[in-house]
Amino acid sequence: TSSGVFLLQMGWGDLGAFGEPSKETPNLDRMAAEGMLFLDFYTANPLCSPSRAALLTGRLPVRNGFYTTNGHARNAYTPQDIVGGIPDSELLLPELLKKAGYINKIIGKWHLGHRPQFHPLKHGFDEWFGSPNCHFGPYDNRERPNIPVYRDWEMIGRYYEDFKIDLKTGEANLTQVYLQEALDFISKQQASQQPFFLYWAIDATHAPVYASKQFLGTSQRGLYGDAVREIDDSVGKILNHLQQLGISENTFVFFTSDNGAALISAPTQGGSNGPFLCGKQTTFEGGMREPAIAWWPGHIPAGGVSHQLGNVMDLFSTSLSLAGLQPPSDRQIDGIDLLPVMLQGKLIDRPIFYYRGNELMAVRAGLYKAHYWTWSNSWEEHGKGIDFCPGQSVSGVTTHTQEEHTYLPLLFHLGRDPGEKFPLSFASEEYQRAVQRISGLLQQHKATLVPGQPQLNVCDQAVMNWSPPGCEKLGKCLKAPESDPKKCPWPH
Amino acid sequence: TSSGVFLLQMGWGDLGAFGEPSKETPNLDRMAAEGMLFLDFYTANPLCSPSRAALLTGRLPVRNGFYTTNGHARNAYTPQDIVGGIPDSELLLPELLKKAGYINKIIGKWHLGHRPQFHPLKHGFDEWFGSPNCHFGPYDNRERPNIPVYRDWEMIGRYYEDFKIDLKTGEANLTQVYLQEALDFISKQQASQQPFFLYWAIDATHAPVYASKQFLGTSQRGLYGDAVREIDDSVGKILNHLQQLGISENTFVFFTSDNGAALISAPTQGGSNGPFLCGKQTTFEGGMREPAIAWWPGHIPAGGVSHQLGNVMDLFSTSLSLAGLQPPSDRQIDGIDLLPVMLQGKLIDRPIFYYRGNELMAVRAGLYKAHYWTWSNSWEEHGKGIDFCPGQSVSGVTTHTQEEHTYLPLLFHLGRDPGEKFPLSFASEEYQRAVQRISGLLQQHKATLVPGQPQLNVCDQAVMNWSPPGCEKLGKCLKAPESDPKKCPWPH
Repeated sequence: TSSGVFLLQMGWGDLGAFGEPSKETPNLDRMAAEGMLFLDFYTANPLCSPSRAALLTGRLPVRNGFYTTNGHARNAYTPQDIVGGIPDSELLLPELLKKAGYINKIIGKWHLGHRPQFHPLKHGFDEWFGSPNCHFGPYDNRERPNIPVYRDWEMIGRYYEDFKIDLKTGEANLTQVYLQEALDFISKQQASQQPFFLYWAIDATHAPVYASKQFLGTSQRGLYGDAVREIDDSVGKILNHLQQLGISENTFVFFTSDNGAALISAPTQGGSNGPFLCGKQTTFEGGMREPAIAWWPGHIPAGGVSHQLGNVMDLFSTSLSLAGLQPPSDRQIDGIDLLPVMLQGKLIDRPIFYYRGNELMAVRAGLYKAHYWTWSNSWEEHGKGIDFCPGQSVSGVTTHTQEEHTYLPLLFHLGRDPGEKFPLSFASEEYQRAVQRISGLLQQHKATLVPGQPQLNVCDQAVMNWSPPGCEKLGKCLKAPESDPKKCPWPH
Repeated sequence: TSSGVFLLQMGWGDLGAFGEPSKETPNLDRMAAEGMLFLDFYTANPLCSPSRAALLTGRLPVRNGFYTTNGHARNAYTPQDIVGGIPDSELLLPELLKKAGYINKIIGKWHLGHRPQFHPLKHGFDEWFGSPNCHFGPYDNRERPNIPVYRDWEMIGRYYEDFKIDLKTGEANLTQVYLQEALDFISKQQASQQPFFLYWAIDATHAPVYASKQFLGTSQRGLYGDAVREIDDSVGKILNHLQQLGISENTFVFFTSDNGAALISAPTQGGSNGPFLCGKQTTFEGGMREPAIAWWPGHIPAGGVSHQLGNVMDLFSTSLSLAGLQPPSDRQIDGIDLLPVMLQGKLIDRPIFYYRGNELMAVRAGLYKAHYWTWSNSWEEHGKGIDFCPGQSVSGVTTHTQEEHTYLPLLFHLGRDPGEKFPLSFASEEYQRAVQRISGLLQQHKATLVPGQPQLNVCDQAVMNWSPPGCEKLGKCLKAPESDPKKCPWPH
């Protein structure tokens, strides 16, 4: 059974099936109607790089190294000047799937490091079309280079140069390019009856948001909605393609997001987290609860809905299981196999850990979520207009100083209060019972935790994408400055 | 074609089909899947009595008298000591339907006045089972009497005495009683091939929230969710009943709410307004945008979704149209006939007026909403812990003083910003264009408006439900105090 994972940045509330009021995602809604909707599905981190590392390793970022110790509870990712990346010691999903004869392709944003040793084809992928970093820019190629776009081992051009994004109109036809790559890859594997793993990690809904000309201005929601509509349309085309090729019953497909909607970019460049609190960068539900749909016609019952507490890391274990493989036994794997959930309707009791950098901020078990630390962002950043919770403010919860609640965690019942607005009374019996259970899970987790070497501590202008392989052929090699490694500044 | 209207207090975000994260409303979701979902449907007022008066008259509360002039922009309703009620001069939907031979029944909360002249059977209904006021209490029958429950002309008992509500456990079997009343009424009309209008106006999701024993503790959402589940189950049973009797294709059914979820009662006694701002009592989207589903198998296409700007007042015009009747031509009717929307997929251009008492606070046209006044509640009330926007605060928008914006309205684009968090720049061309159009609609509306005699100004302890008709038979007549009419205090 082949696997396809759609991973992008979208909020829980961005899909019609999840209550977006414009209801403009007919294809994703159809995917949900034909498959299973996960209502309590999480990412491993409220930021992109660590979540993607977690998906591919099945392990929390604090284990696989995708975190920083430069400051307490700071979000970190892989900008162009990051020195670290995915360690060789980590076993990635495509590396393992290879053993079962899979061909693996990543289309879109890699985000696990851009230096040569971190290249996706060194970590199990057979093919790559996309870029190592976010499509920020345009840059002047002097202070910082424009982001490269790779085909396999070599750069074939740069964003804003060979791969245009018009920041004024929001026009870019990149999603169409990524779509075609996916369709072609699937056709090729089907033709040779080859099991495959396709990781479609496109970036149109990440600022700077873009859409193709045919989608521009078609959404009620502005440019962000245009991008969502194009992605929705593309997902529909990929699923149709699988059906037309007759391999939909042999292909497990999962759609989810790497972090909550970036409310800091709202309303034109950011999405919606529905009824949840805050967004990207935070460990409130808006930052980490994600839209999630599983689709596997003939296997997963149509119209299913699950309250299983799920996590992107589960896609690691589930994909291995589909390939008849066991997860590695020499290390802690945080993902679980969701097949019993999807095929037999089981509910597996497991906690959700909400990390921000090196700190375990909150833990969910059942319907209860305990916050051991709260923080939105600092007063200083907030004063500059950086707001991860626009229009929302819950006293003592969305704090602008890092508040420790280790000895008296803030407890929410996410069934009655999905918006995390009404902490339970410390004196209640319900509080005592729930906190006792969750604190037990936390202690157990911490007692056995072996943190990985932090990969996101050091930044250096010299390691940026000055001269990626292939640059000579294109005449696009740039001169790197002298190496000058520094601690990366992580303000959030 | 018969008509059924389910009207109760629920938030836009309380149904699975509208993105409630627990997704516990399979019957309402099925109703939506078999019918049409209205995503941009409104009530006429952010409070119950005026909305109900608007539904039954097809007219804004400011026209039909269901407002107060005791203060500026104050919400008013019909508590036990209200002197006013629905004026005889108003033509109610059941009065008109009678001319087409309909039998009309109201089950549940009437709320258009409880003095003899306001009795629903004096205003077109043939049958009534329910109460004239909210099921607040229990009262001591000295300061205030317990609320009566009527069957037709006479009280048959009182809440908390003959119709139990256990405030401690939330147990009450009233929804089951209301359900049986509905099933029996429908059976009887079907047996005699009688067209009917059933107005099922139950109150389980209005504080004090209650549910039957079989539903208590069954929801992830606590007692409020238990009540929602019981209503959902009841709706399913009523729709099944119509189908089993073979009259579903001759019965138009509509489900909606009289105001947004009462966040003041959250989390145990209040629901969810999804991604929208604030709740009941306010003219933000959370106060007035409502879940709405139309169902008419064989006529309304299954799985339809409409962005028609709709209003509870449209149910007046639509029900008349279904009965082959014209709306009255001697007065302004604010409702429109939604049949072309539901049967032919048309979109009718019409504004939404957001009133709070005697003030037009905001106007929506297309995707734009202009606020001419903003107010959540006063600092004084807020200081007492009364909060209509818990956890939400949008600077200059959710104001605690009444702010006039007549000359420079606050403008929101509800497609890009359904949560009303990012007002458009006054300097933008988009602002100029949209405000010009909306202000034109507002001027036209105000120029032709003839306000009705306000019915909700005077309160008097003497008019309470001391001795409703039938009290002698039950030995439940109480002695009214001396008449002492006063201006009703309306703090919000």
